[in-house]
Amino acid sequence: MAQIAVMSVDGSVKKIDRDSEEGLQALRKLASLLLKDSLHQEFKGIRLGESVADEDGFHVDSDKDDQQVSADELSALQDALLAKAKDAKVEFVEADLDDALAEVKDDPYSSELIKEAAKDGKVAMYQVGDVKAVADGDIMVYGDAIKHLKLLSVAGAYWKGMSSNPMLQRVYGTVFFSKDALDEDMKKRQEAREHDHRVIGNQLDLFFVDPKVGAGLPYWMPKGATIRRTIERYIIDREVADGYEHVYTPVLMNLDAYKTSGHWEHYRDDMFPPMDMGDGEMLEIRPMNCPSHIQIYKHHIRSYRDLPMRIAELGMMHRYEKSGALSGLQRVREMTLNDGHTFVAVDQIRDEFAKILNLIMDVYKDFDITDYSFRLSLRDPKNKEKYYGNDEMWDESQKLLKAAMDDLNLDYYEAEGEAAFYGPKLDIQTKTALGNDETMSTIQLDFMQPDRFGLSYVGKDGKEHMPVMIHRGIVGTMERFVAYLTEIYKGAFPTWLAPEQVHIIPVSDEKHGDYAKQLADKMKAAQIRVVVDDRNEKMGYKIREAQTQKVPYTLVVGDDEVKDNAVSVRKYGEEAQNSMSQDAFMNEILADIASYSRKN
Amino acid sequence: MAQIAVMSVDGSVKKIDRDSEEGLQALRKLASLLLKDSLHQEFKGIRLGESVADEDGFHVDSDKDDQQVSADELSALQDALLAKAKDAKVEFVEADLDDALAEVKDDPYSSELIKEAAKDGKVAMYQVGDVKAVADGDIMVYGDAIKHLKLLSVAGAYWKGMSSNPMLQRVYGTVFFSKDALDEDMKKRQEAREHDHRVIGNQLDLFFVDPKVGAGLPYWMPKGATIRRTIERYIIDREVADGYEHVYTPVLMNLDAYKTSGHWEHYRDDMFPPMDMGDGEMLEIRPMNCPSHIQIYKHHIRSYRDLPMRIAELGMMHRYEKSGALSGLQRVREMTLNDGHTFVAVDQIRDEFAKILNLIMDVYKDFDITDYSFRLSLRDPKNKEKYYGNDEMWDESQKLLKAAMDDLNLDYYEAEGEAAFYGPKLDIQTKTALGNDETMSTIQLDFMQPDRFGLSYVGKDGKEHMPVMIHRGIVGTMERFVAYLTEIYKGAFPTWLAPEQVHIIPVSDEKHGDYAKQLADKMKAAQIRVVVDDRNEKMGYKIREAQTQKVPYTLVVGDDEVKDNAVSVRKYGEEAQNSMSQDAFMNEILADIASYSRKN
Repeated sequence: MAQIAVMSVDGSVKKIDRDSEEGLQALRKLASLLLKDSLHQEFKGIRLGESVADEDGFHVDSDKDDQQVSADELSALQDALLAKAKDAKVEFVEADLDDALAEVKDDPYSSELIKEAAKDGKVAMYQVGDVKAVADGDIMVYGDAIKHLKLLSVAGAYWKGMSSNPMLQRVYGTVFFSKDALDEDMKKRQEAREHDHRVIGNQLDLFFVDPKVGAGLPYWMPKGATIRRTIERYIIDREVADGYEHVYTPVLMNLDAYKTSGHWEHYRDDMFPPMDMGDGEMLEIRPMNCPSHIQIYKHHIRSYRDLPMRIAELGMMHRYEKSGALSGLQRVREMTLNDGHTFVAVDQIRDEFAKILNLIMDVYKDFDITDYSFRLSLRDPKNKEKYYGNDEMWDESQKLLKAAMDDLNLDYYEAEGEAAFYGPKLDIQTKTALGNDETMSTIQLDFMQPDRFGLSYVGKDGKEHMPVMIHRGIVGTMERFVAYLTEIYKGAFPTWLAPEQVHIIPVSDEKHGDYAKQLADKMKAAQIRVVVDDRNEKMGYKIREAQTQKVPYTLVVGDDEVKDNAVSVRKYGEEAQNSMSQDAFMNEILADIASYSRKN
Repeated sequence: MAQIAVMSVDGSVKKIDRDSEEGLQALRKLASLLLKDSLHQEFKGIRLGESVADEDGFHVDSDKDDQQVSADELSALQDALLAKAKDAKVEFVEADLDDALAEVKDDPYSSELIKEAAKDGKVAMYQVGDVKAVADGDIMVYGDAIKHLKLLSVAGAYWKGMSSNPMLQRVYGTVFFSKDALDEDMKKRQEAREHDHRVIGNQLDLFFVDPKVGAGLPYWMPKGATIRRTIERYIIDREVADGYEHVYTPVLMNLDAYKTSGHWEHYRDDMFPPMDMGDGEMLEIRPMNCPSHIQIYKHHIRSYRDLPMRIAELGMMHRYEKSGALSGLQRVREMTLNDGHTFVAVDQIRDEFAKILNLIMDVYKDFDITDYSFRLSLRDPKNKEKYYGNDEMWDESQKLLKAAMDDLNLDYYEAEGEAAFYGPKLDIQTKTALGNDETMSTIQLDFMQPDRFGLSYVGKDGKEHMPVMIHRGIVGTMERFVAYLTEIYKGAFPTWLAPEQVHIIPVSDEKHGDYAKQLADKMKAAQIRVVVDDRNEKMGYKIREAQTQKVPYTLVVGDDEVKDNAVSVRKYGEEAQNSMSQDAFMNEILADIASYSRKN
């Protein structure tokens, strides 16, 4: 196996396998410093921020008053970098802090990085070309292996990731030891871009997020809102049919409830700051819906006849995520969860668990989600103090979940350390469009909150008993689910979800416009989402645009169609154009809508 | 006209008309002090809080360690009060503060009231019997006119209305000069109780509010949630059919947006405290949805072809109301508004105004709201500094609204001082169950926010123009609308809104239970909300309970029904029981549901 020389932060040099993770990381580290040196050379007077190498490639932040790095210049910058790489060799420098600072006196970012890294008046640095950078991790010593490198893009990034700081320019790149590996990576990136719900969301005008009005707070544009509303109505109706009682509960709650629930103790970092209402009242914008549903349960005395009691809600919650972690609809600060809590007697757990799991699998069929697996998320036995409750409770509940899965004859794998702080859970893992695992649904046992909130029911014996609480989500948050579907479908939503289901194009608005509008009215009466495209544009343009917008059915209507009371139908992604009667088309599209996403 | 002697806070006595508002108030003031004296006599060692006379009657707060006033004791207390009244005469006392405090040294509430009222070491007091109370408002001098008095109820009330203070017992009463007036008042109270949405909401288990988990933050129980969800789906579908684009926008927004909008300047007292997210970001839980919809508008460059652009949302908002002002679903701190904003060119205002008004009147028909009037809410010309903008803008927009109403040939009345701070509006006033005026819908012109947020569209001339924004609500907030409907219907919701539409009672569960369940399944498949009452209770009890729960249709099924594939139907509020075939019943109820609340 090929080896490379790698320098560590103490200046020592060792040999490691080139084709290891460490090898790739050391390669990228060197590439990032070569990029710094190239920026320094190409843009006189540029100030240099952080240079980072990670699993995604590498990037360098920079700032210049009169001339920022633009995408047009990436190619020249890449050439400069590759030219430098051939003869590049990293030197280790242990500099006096004052000397190091003097060298970068016009560059506040480099100065700050150096100050942060200094120890006892010294700072360890790597020198590459004319640039010295703080030594932070292993770096490949010789640059001659750098041939398969690509500068990818440039984007704004706040200094240190804080929006109160200046905005710098961040240049992204990737690098590999072989051409094949680089090609493979470029292909993956292209595929990721094609599936990226942020890109598609923008193309199809589904949603946007504007950090200036609120980081991680999505605005659902009409088309995205239509998809979301369709899913919300579907899931509520499905749950009501399955015995759930849907409620609305407030997004604000007295902070005391989250102290009782344990969230304030275990989960505070993810919570928003409480609001002081005066009069001794502290309100918290909820991070979870469970304490709210507990209020519903507690509002009446409950009897064994009331159990299982299934409370559900599209519950809006807020979680504090670092702004750097936020991403489109995938990682947000405000989200609406398809949440539900069922309250059961201990001897009902197995049946209720099976009922929930069957509901989840039925819903998956409707959304054509077929590739999933079961993960039993257990307590980390080496880190027991992270969790609420005692060994007995954990052992018992983990055993119960396993038994329930065995009842159903379903395979699962165990993941220690993935449990919630208050109980074990079954996670149902689906595959994202790019093949990554994602938790879609969860069923979670909770012996703790019924205890903490003093829940009870009157048993057959006339005595008080404590119910068990099962937290469950089916499609997760509306935000993440729509992001998931957008990526899976590449924006070509199945008809029942498509914001625009039918696009009607009259060949001549004058001659066929009325027919098109009557047809549209007939469809609207059947709850079909239809648009008549009577703009003054060429027909070819209109058809192409309907394809770009991924409308499931494009209908062209001209003389023949008017004469025969017919439509000429083109389905999304197909070239063929079929003539059929209005009635035949109505039957087809209504059957299509009624089948949800199922492939028949 | 009969006259009475009344004492003022300076001890002077004058004569006033008995049958004036002042006369009634002075009567109630004396009654409240007589109640204090009676409490003092009947409950040795009682501590006495505030005594209040107002338009609703009078009340006195009190507190005692070992024995609180209970509802059972009201009758005895009333007798004691009436007995004292005959010979009662108010004496004016100007006491030294120290002496006054010494007399109530074991009563912290009286002490605090006295301290608050003291001036220059003196305190003016009224003495009635053994009790001295701070003189605060005119009081009738002689008690012999007090004959028609009723102590009504007792309830907990926080000292000074603050939940961090101790809970006292509040005794409520009412008093009049004549038996007729008292009888009339008692009748009104009874009627108000029968219509009171808080009482009905409790009986029918529609919602609850628990100040301990959040004052003014309602929890919608399953039945209330079903009503709300039905209304929400109805109004969204209605608006979408009328050209509105429904969106979802975040409930949180950067505080800066509310500075731009002017809310922070003009409306801050009604807003919740901002949340400091760190990193310089201040988030506000929104008091209004307009700035959110402006973000939707601004997200793209708009052209004259896009106008009118109609953005709608069931938008959740939060407004800070004093805890004393909160009431059931009627006055809350968290609410979801049937909100919409249309962006129009100036020359589209009249047409759009008419379109909105027609939509409102159509929706009213569906809810059988027939008794309404139009109020044009204008700026208070004597208080111009309260409002945004200049005279010209106000004159122009007020004239425009009047012209639009004249176009439609609709009568209206003008209310100066009722405009929003940023523009005039048309309010549509409906009558509550008790005959009071309430604003149900509103259409509001706004030239200000488009200006402040720099909104524009590209006109036919290729140049930038500013759109006008029309704020409109149709059924208002879900909270207030459901409160209104509950009171109007006295809880007997029309079938389309009833949480439970059909209650099926098998004569014998063993013999007719299967038939009942098959029938129920058939109805559920048609989206009818049905319950089979298979409890082990007498049939009469089950029928009575279905009536109490105001279920529109109660079906009894026994041998005859099973044999004939029929049902025996009893409609809510009717004695008659009609036999009909299953199909006939299905047709009847589906037609009933499809007619909304319309009376045919």
